[in-house]
Amino acid sequence: MSAFRYSRMIEFCDTDLAGIMHFSNYFRFMEAAEHAYLRNCGLSVVGTWEGQAIGFPRVSASCDYIRPVRFADTVEVEVTVEKIGTSSVRYAFTFYKGPEVVARGQTTAVLCRVRADGELETMPIPEALREKIQRGPTE
Amino acid sequence: MSAFRYSRMIEFCDTDLAGIMHFSNYFRFMEAAEHAYLRNCGLSVVGTWEGQAIGFPRVSASCDYIRPVRFADTVEVEVTVEKIGTSSVRYAFTFYKGPEVVARGQTTAVLCRVRADGELETMPIPEALREKIQRGPTE
Amino acid sequence: MSAFRYSRMIEFCDTDLAGIMHFSNYFRFMEAAEHAYLRNCGLSVVGTWEGQAIGFPRVSASCDYIRPVRFADTVEVEVTVEKIGTSSVRYAFTFYKGPEVVARGQTTAVLCRVRADGELETMPIPEALREKIQRGPTE
Amino acid sequence: MSAFRYSRMIEFCDTDLAGIMHFSNYFRFMEAAEHAYLRNCGLSVVGTWEGQAIGFPRVSASCDYIRPVRFADTVEVEVTVEKIGTSSVRYAFTFYKGPEVVARGQTTAVLCRVRADGELETMPIPEALREKIQRGPTE
Repeated sequence: MSAFRYSRMIEFCDTDLAGIMHFSNYFRFMEAAEHAYLRNCGLSVVGTWEGQAIGFPRVSASCDYIRPVRFADTVEVEVTVEKIGTSSVRYAFTFYKGPEVVARGQTTAVLCRVRADGELETMPIPEALREKIQRGPTE
Repeated sequence: MSAFRYSRMIEFCDTDLAGIMHFSNYFRFMEAAEHAYLRNCGLSVVGTWEGQAIGFPRVSASCDYIRPVRFADTVEVEVTVEKIGTSSVRYAFTFYKGPEVVARGQTTAVLCRVRADGELETMPIPEALREKIQRGPTE
Repeated sequence: MSAFRYSRMIEFCDTDLAGIMHFSNYFRFMEAAEHAYLRNCGLSVVGTWEGQAIGFPRVSASCDYIRPVRFADTVEVEVTVEKIGTSSVRYAFTFYKGPEVVARGQTTAVLCRVRADGELETMPIPEALREKIQRGPTE
Repeated sequence: MSAFRYSRMIEFCDTDLAGIMHFSNYFRFMEAAEHAYLRNCGLSVVGTWEGQAIGFPRVSASCDYIRPVRFADTVEVEVTVEKIGTSSVRYAFTFYKGPEVVARGQTTAVLCRVRADGELETMPIPEALREKIQRGPTE
């Protein structure tokens, strides 16, 4: 399927006292990259589908850290849709600093509707939504 | 009015590459201290009042940084209610590391109801709520 | 003195359960805007001056919140240098969402050298550095 | 090996607009739990070993999200040392809300010395350090 790159500079508040990006912030970058991907597919991340509030909470996330990144470094996060299941989308993320791969991550998100009581309920990905994610960025 | 102390250790992810707590995180500590204060007044921070969702978003926040704090330091945040207006509560926060004052902050929160369209709307603080905040922690 | 605009989209992780940007994150945006400003002045934020590690920790920060901002909103943060003292720089920040002012903030940063023992020590702003900040962005 | 529990309340700033803890914050909780574990083993997380600055950056991290947690929930994070290699420690984390498992995570940290040029360099875990981690919390 399609690849897509999201670029971002490491900010001061992304670092920790070891002088490198805090390991938890890679997950924030993955989310921002995923959302940029979806927007470029013509999708809104938070929205409604036939009148119901829907969202894509994650059921799993992982990251392998290969080389640290530091304040003012720019990383490019390549987004690939690895698999679209009945309700889930699995993304792979490759973090580049220049030509070098500095980290690799993966998340799985599941389409949920927000019920009237505020609880999240898994729902099948509607065909029109699936096609947009599968086709990938159109810009 | 009443004082109250909230204690917390500086965590690794609270620091930045300068080796000290990032200046934005003092505001997170102030919020946690305010919420601990309200809970100790017998109030829930996020809740309903006569069936309406209410909250206390801030309209202003400030902090003066006197001495840096570092990973694994424990700070005590003293909470004082400085003023209760028609809709607003002004809090003062004094950050201690041992006997030493390391920062001073202030926030003003305004009671809002969440309208059906999701917008926030200022509302007067109900008398029973005002009394609980004024009386202060009961534990 | 000079004005400068830094643009940024509100991300999912910048929001809280009230559905709006968390009040502490405005300070992260101010820092990012300040750093973008300094870079555009030809300065590196973290660096050395005549062989010594230097930095610009904040001694105060404040923000007035006028209108909430939400996920996927884009804000423009206008940076103005209000005053350059012997060791300090005071910045003002105006947050715009479209034509509307949604928040105003201020920070004061103080130039420090990092001593051999890791402690921060205030130092006067060297003339060449002062001139670059005063002249403002050159791009 | 040993188990250990770290308790923590979900704060307002840990949540996102979906009303649940943001998925990246589980990694911050894991780190805090790991550090609490190490402190209870009589170890300092950031420190020196025979005069050299050392640290435990992570080489991988993962989390499976089972049930969302919300503002003001208290979670207990059970820490288990799964494996101690030559230079690495693998931790498993089980998040409980009351009796219910709400998430499971894993991190692998590698002992590094900080070289004079600021780069991190893997080093074997000294025997005395290994024994303390293996023995587990002594309090």
